Amino acid sequence: MPSPLSSPVTFQPERALPFAASLRACNPVVHCLTNDVVQAFTANALLAVGASPAMVVAAEESPGFAALAGAVLINVGTLHRRLAESMLLAAASARSHGTPWVLDPVAVGVLPYRAGVTGQLLTHRPTAIRGNAAEILSLAGRASSAKGADSLDSTETALEAAQELAARHECVVAVTGEVDFITDGAATLAVHGGHINLTRITGAGCSLSALAAAFLACAEGDRLGAVAAACLLMKTAGQLAQERTAELGLGSFAVALLDGLSLPPGKLFK
Amino acid sequence: MPSPLSSPVTFQPERALPFAASLRACNPVVHCLTNDVVQAFTANALLAVGASPAMVVAAEESPGFAALAGAVLINVGTLHRRLAESMLLAAASARSHGTPWVLDPVAVGVLPYRAGVTGQLLTHRPTAIRGNAAEILSLAGRASSAKGADSLDSTETALEAAQELAARHECVVAVTGEVDFITDGAATLAVHGGHINLTRITGAGCSLSALAAAFLACAEGDRLGAVAAACLLMKTAGQLAQERTAELGLGSFAVALLDGLSLPPGKLFK
Amino acid sequence: MPSPLSSPVTFQPERALPFAASLRACNPVVHCLTNDVVQAFTANALLAVGASPAMVVAAEESPGFAALAGAVLINVGTLHRRLAESMLLAAASARSHGTPWVLDPVAVGVLPYRAGVTGQLLTHRPTAIRGNAAEILSLAGRASSAKGADSLDSTETALEAAQELAARHECVVAVTGEVDFITDGAATLAVHGGHINLTRITGAGCSLSALAAAFLACAEGDRLGAVAAACLLMKTAGQLAQERTAELGLGSFAVALLDGLSLPPGKLFK
Repeated sequence: MPSPLSSPVTFQPERALPFAASLRACNPVVHCLTNDVVQAFTANALLAVGASPAMVVAAEESPGFAALAGAVLINVGTLHRRLAESMLLAAASARSHGTPWVLDPVAVGVLPYRAGVTGQLLTHRPTAIRGNAAEILSLAGRASSAKGADSLDSTETALEAAQELAARHECVVAVTGEVDFITDGAATLAVHGGHINLTRITGAGCSLSALAAAFLACAEGDRLGAVAAACLLMKTAGQLAQERTAELGLGSFAVALLDGLSLPPGKLFK
Repeated sequence: MPSPLSSPVTFQPERALPFAASLRACNPVVHCLTNDVVQAFTANALLAVGASPAMVVAAEESPGFAALAGAVLINVGTLHRRLAESMLLAAASARSHGTPWVLDPVAVGVLPYRAGVTGQLLTHRPTAIRGNAAEILSLAGRASSAKGADSLDSTETALEAAQELAARHECVVAVTGEVDFITDGAATLAVHGGHINLTRITGAGCSLSALAAAFLACAEGDRLGAVAAACLLMKTAGQLAQERTAELGLGSFAVALLDGLSLPPGKLFK
Repeated sequence: MPSPLSSPVTFQPERALPFAASLRACNPVVHCLTNDVVQAFTANALLAVGASPAMVVAAEESPGFAALAGAVLINVGTLHRRLAESMLLAAASARSHGTPWVLDPVAVGVLPYRAGVTGQLLTHRPTAIRGNAAEILSLAGRASSAKGADSLDSTETALEAAQELAARHECVVAVTGEVDFITDGAATLAVHGGHINLTRITGAGCSLSALAAAFLACAEGDRLGAVAAACLLMKTAGQLAQERTAELGLGSFAVALLDGLSLPPGKLFK
């Protein structure tokens, strides 16, 4: 357990900009094993930032493709037996081939079956874990409050759990909400901004995990910065979307969020 | 069989308003087992009206989650064996735990396999059934005309079948189309308005069934009113969407429909 | 192998117009067995042009429904065992009942499992095959370059392979990209226009295959023209979408693309 922990340092747009710019040059293939609800939004978010999404789900294909891809995303939102088999094979392959991979443990504290599968996935050592406060608290073995897939805890409450989890699994952990914290167990970054509407449409959190995978595919060593850049990109696009659609509603907000993600990074982080 | 039947009474915006307002305070978790096509639209529609969607599909998880959720939606649009197993477990659990649940029998008259599964689902006594005229006629054992998943019959044609079905299964039945009829076998409400474009995008009907589940989760006894409120909310948002996007097309209509659903109820039902 | 081959003839809007107009009168049911990412966009694209989508996926239902439908689309993007079983049954049924069917061999060159299933599907003789250059080159047994699901080859490079493939399987082959080529092995049509953004959102290519199926359902013998009309419709709507959303971004582009597809054909092909 890391102790004493340094205080979170705010991650600034000028640090995110080079990550976002090089992602477009790098154009990584992101192999997504994600939930049924957010497939299209996730693919569109990845395309918007310059990555190349590929949803390859068969157990016959996922380990081979995880070896070739730039990064792998595993999101247990709509887990079932066949998908769990493919995910475990993909995670094992990613690990043994050095492909960075991100775990999104949707609703892990609420449902024992996915908690078991998530525990098995963790043995394949994710490069990063991205979740809300309730999910991160639950993964760290602490008490949490969730309502379905939503957290009732603040990210501050889960910061220590995130740091512990990062140290234990030697990975980056991002606990996201009103303020995002990204930690490797030693250093911790804080990402501010965003808008509450990001929690009022489906797919923003799940897509953020996919963006983290994309950034990790192209990160030259700075994994903490890569995940923080994904978080700041989503928050900034969310803020812009809200400014543009405040009079319209949540349908327009979701469209404008993809618009924001597709802006040239120099325009978004102006 | 209920006889004589009272004539349908038009359900007015002022009766829908309190349902829509209290839904936002109630913020129910709606457990959705729905079809592959409408997952994202359904989740966004639920979020827009103030509910919390959760698509939990594994047989290992669906009965436990149905016990905890505020309501359950079961839509057989893209039924297959694994999903049928989860649905039957969820319906049984919902029934035994008193969780209200809604059945959406997509294309039930066209395909014998789903007719069989739907028959099994009915033994777990849904709180409400929402379908188009062809689906309701078919469930009631009458002749119907469908083209794929679309009905060629008017809702008037299916009104008697809806009343019969409601009385037989002691549930609310909503047969929706140009005019929606909502009946418990004794009283019948009629919901007017809407726009034909609601049938020219995917997901409006399926999302309406999800909204009905959300309203039932928070209804204090008035189940007929709760389902009618969902119907009027969708029709009113559809009409507003059409006014805003008449010059644009169906892509913009779908976005504006979600915008309308996300309006404060007092603004939508003005 | 056809030799000598005639040069591609440019397919003009005035030839596409009657196909698009009669599609709206014909309103075919298009049975889609497609990938998880593009289900909603595909359904909305079909509805926009006047077709009636139906995603029927169970092995218990797919052969029966393929017999009744106007056309069948089979897209292997997120293939897995259960879906492969349904697809093979649907293809066999389509063939024996004379239902036209379209094969979209997503990423076939990259992954051996789907190459095997695609080989089995081909024995049921598709009416048309629609793919990018890498996919068509790979199906024809030639070297290709792909990055995940995207092609690194130009359609010109794959033209000869498309012609060979069409002759070998006695079907229409469309190889689509910056310029689309549509061939039956003897005559070849070229479709120009479109915009690069069609490759920067998810679902445009997959939906094009679905539109090809819809047009084939209503084509009176001219299968080459039917597939070319689908290609020109997508390119024209893409161009219009780009004009309308150049200042906005990719979220708005996708919405405007559906808007364009839903325009009356006389307005789109003005």
